[in-house]
Amino acid sequence: MNTIIAFYQTKFGELWEKSLTSLIKEAVFGVLKEANLEIDQIDAIFFGNMMAGVLENNLHTASKIAEIIGRNIPIFRVEAACASGGVAFHLATRYLNDNCRKTVLVLGAEKMTDYSPEEVTSALAAASSGEEQEAGLTFPGLYALMANFYLQKYHYTEENLAYVSYKNHYHGSLNEKAHFQNKLTIEKILQSPYVAYPLKVLDSSPISDGAAALIVTNDKNLVKKSKASVLVLASEVVTDTINLFQRKSLDEILSTKIAAELAFKKAGIERKQINVAEVHDCFSIAEILAMEDLGFWKKGEGGRKIKELSTLLNQSSLTVNPSGGLKAAGHPVGATGIKQIGEIFLQLTKKAEKRQVKNAKYGLAHNVGGSGGTAVVTILAV
Amino acid sequence: MNTIIAFYQTKFGELWEKSLTSLIKEAVFGVLKEANLEIDQIDAIFFGNMMAGVLENNLHTASKIAEIIGRNIPIFRVEAACASGGVAFHLATRYLNDNCRKTVLVLGAEKMTDYSPEEVTSALAAASSGEEQEAGLTFPGLYALMANFYLQKYHYTEENLAYVSYKNHYHGSLNEKAHFQNKLTIEKILQSPYVAYPLKVLDSSPISDGAAALIVTNDKNLVKKSKASVLVLASEVVTDTINLFQRKSLDEILSTKIAAELAFKKAGIERKQINVAEVHDCFSIAEILAMEDLGFWKKGEGGRKIKELSTLLNQSSLTVNPSGGLKAAGHPVGATGIKQIGEIFLQLTKKAEKRQVKNAKYGLAHNVGGSGGTAVVTILAV
Repeated sequence: MNTIIAFYQTKFGELWEKSLTSLIKEAVFGVLKEANLEIDQIDAIFFGNMMAGVLENNLHTASKIAEIIGRNIPIFRVEAACASGGVAFHLATRYLNDNCRKTVLVLGAEKMTDYSPEEVTSALAAASSGEEQEAGLTFPGLYALMANFYLQKYHYTEENLAYVSYKNHYHGSLNEKAHFQNKLTIEKILQSPYVAYPLKVLDSSPISDGAAALIVTNDKNLVKKSKASVLVLASEVVTDTINLFQRKSLDEILSTKIAAELAFKKAGIERKQINVAEVHDCFSIAEILAMEDLGFWKKGEGGRKIKELSTLLNQSSLTVNPSGGLKAAGHPVGATGIKQIGEIFLQLTKKAEKRQVKNAKYGLAHNVGGSGGTAVVTILAV
Repeated sequence: MNTIIAFYQTKFGELWEKSLTSLIKEAVFGVLKEANLEIDQIDAIFFGNMMAGVLENNLHTASKIAEIIGRNIPIFRVEAACASGGVAFHLATRYLNDNCRKTVLVLGAEKMTDYSPEEVTSALAAASSGEEQEAGLTFPGLYALMANFYLQKYHYTEENLAYVSYKNHYHGSLNEKAHFQNKLTIEKILQSPYVAYPLKVLDSSPISDGAAALIVTNDKNLVKKSKASVLVLASEVVTDTINLFQRKSLDEILSTKIAAELAFKKAGIERKQINVAEVHDCFSIAEILAMEDLGFWKKGEGGRKIKELSTLLNQSSLTVNPSGGLKAAGHPVGATGIKQIGEIFLQLTKKAEKRQVKNAKYGLAHNVGGSGGTAVVTILAV
């Protein structure tokens, strides 16, 4: 069984003094220290990064990592837009399944704030289709189309959306690694400027720098010696059409639905057993759709459910986005999927401090690429 | 045992009338037809592509492929500079080892000729380090440093290098899918203009468009039904420093040496058993270094060996680059690693027509990323 034995996260935020290389270094050597391992105990590295090529003309980062660690092992860079981290983790588990007594380092990192918001928004649009880019559709625009459709279909208002950011900023205020640690009021969220109607600045995750890393092993001896460990029950990746207009429905992410079905079947547990989840809230509407598509809420009831704040820390048997989610913890895109899994690791091993979910035994991480063209669902247990 | 049961290659060349999407479509449906399979018999797709993000602001191509095939299966995009195709194949074999009775499609594609040579050269430099880019070092420049060092150390001249292009263009003249199908004389190669001393235009692989695809399976029933099949004995990936100045030696590619050692050990065969090899000849010097680092020739004797033309079609027990190599067959970077393996498939299954290597039982493909930061060695057998 694949087991996570360590997690390290840099601070997420506007880290102008740090380069992509320095973020990678901090995360790699940070997680090795956390696991009490030397670099020569690592058999392979999987690296999730989306934007270094487009923003910095910097591809072939696998080779850069080889230089940083000073070793000649297999290193793989994986790109799946904002799901790059989740897909890197997935491929790492498949690699481990093929190799007995091996240990891999899974890394995600992104450096985004050295560029203007316009440049980064344009670069992020690389995760959409050529047709959508030519039509001028940015990611706020694509999620705004989904939000408009959902709000009209189920008779909700922008206030319903605002509760996502309200909850996640509260959680972020308890996480010292989060990009934003300020609480928000519903009024302040509703009064923030629109980025693409009906989505506002405070419905949107920020542009962030950051890195995160995990150590995953199937070596029983290493697991025995580790300070903490979490089992990987399932990791599933599903892709879907890149163009929104090709989808059967605007108010569901089919890739998430299918990946969740596969993951729960593989893990052999029920939705109601999950105590803590990190779900992909790149925009407020995304968390609501994700909660429905993952099967935690029925289709169309998400707008009501989010307003009940039942997924706020320890308000019910399921806490969602205790890290602060993408909204408050930040969204350095290639690192996000790794941080989500890392947050579940912290929660299940009782290391989440002020934001600790009580009695957490099962956790889920949900990472999305683009407007839903890729979804990764990971289920973990202690 | 993983088995290749089909290969399809588009024409390589300046395909101005074709987009990346149309090349992907042609290769995907071409290889399915070749294998006599339907798309719903494919369990996952691995896609090697280097440049679409940098050149076209087009990432998340996994999702684009999901749209093309109209199915919701795992699709993975892998980037490792010019070794993207080889690494995609490697990860596909690891994925198969973890899954019984599965079948994967491995794809590589690149669209490069819609941009000026200056734009593409700059984009290709994304496979080098930031330091090297800032110093103005392009890939011709990096390989020129290696070539100068090698020629001086072992007392060879530019004429020795020219025999690589001479041989590979002769092979290309026998391959109707090749970018260039014209034979060259040594005089013509030596008279072509320098791109970076001592490397000339005719020491260099071209900027090409193209796609290639393989079907790989571990389903014994599918193998039985297939028209042709080739066993994957080994596939190994090794990374090394990205910066040339960090290497111990300028006249060897350490990643190739280690990957070859691992691959021959895994395959359980000797160098002398290999009858046909496709090696990474992005520049003439690269084929000479590769032949030494792979262990076919001793260190330093490559300049003399290439001039003997023993690796020309059916001149000895080992033919090298019968497809024409990158030099003549073309180098659509993400597709190259797949085409190399596909050429070995054609040779081992006696489908290589005018360029057929006689009695080929074992073959090797060698794919390099950047100036040697990544190397992939694949060994196949019938």
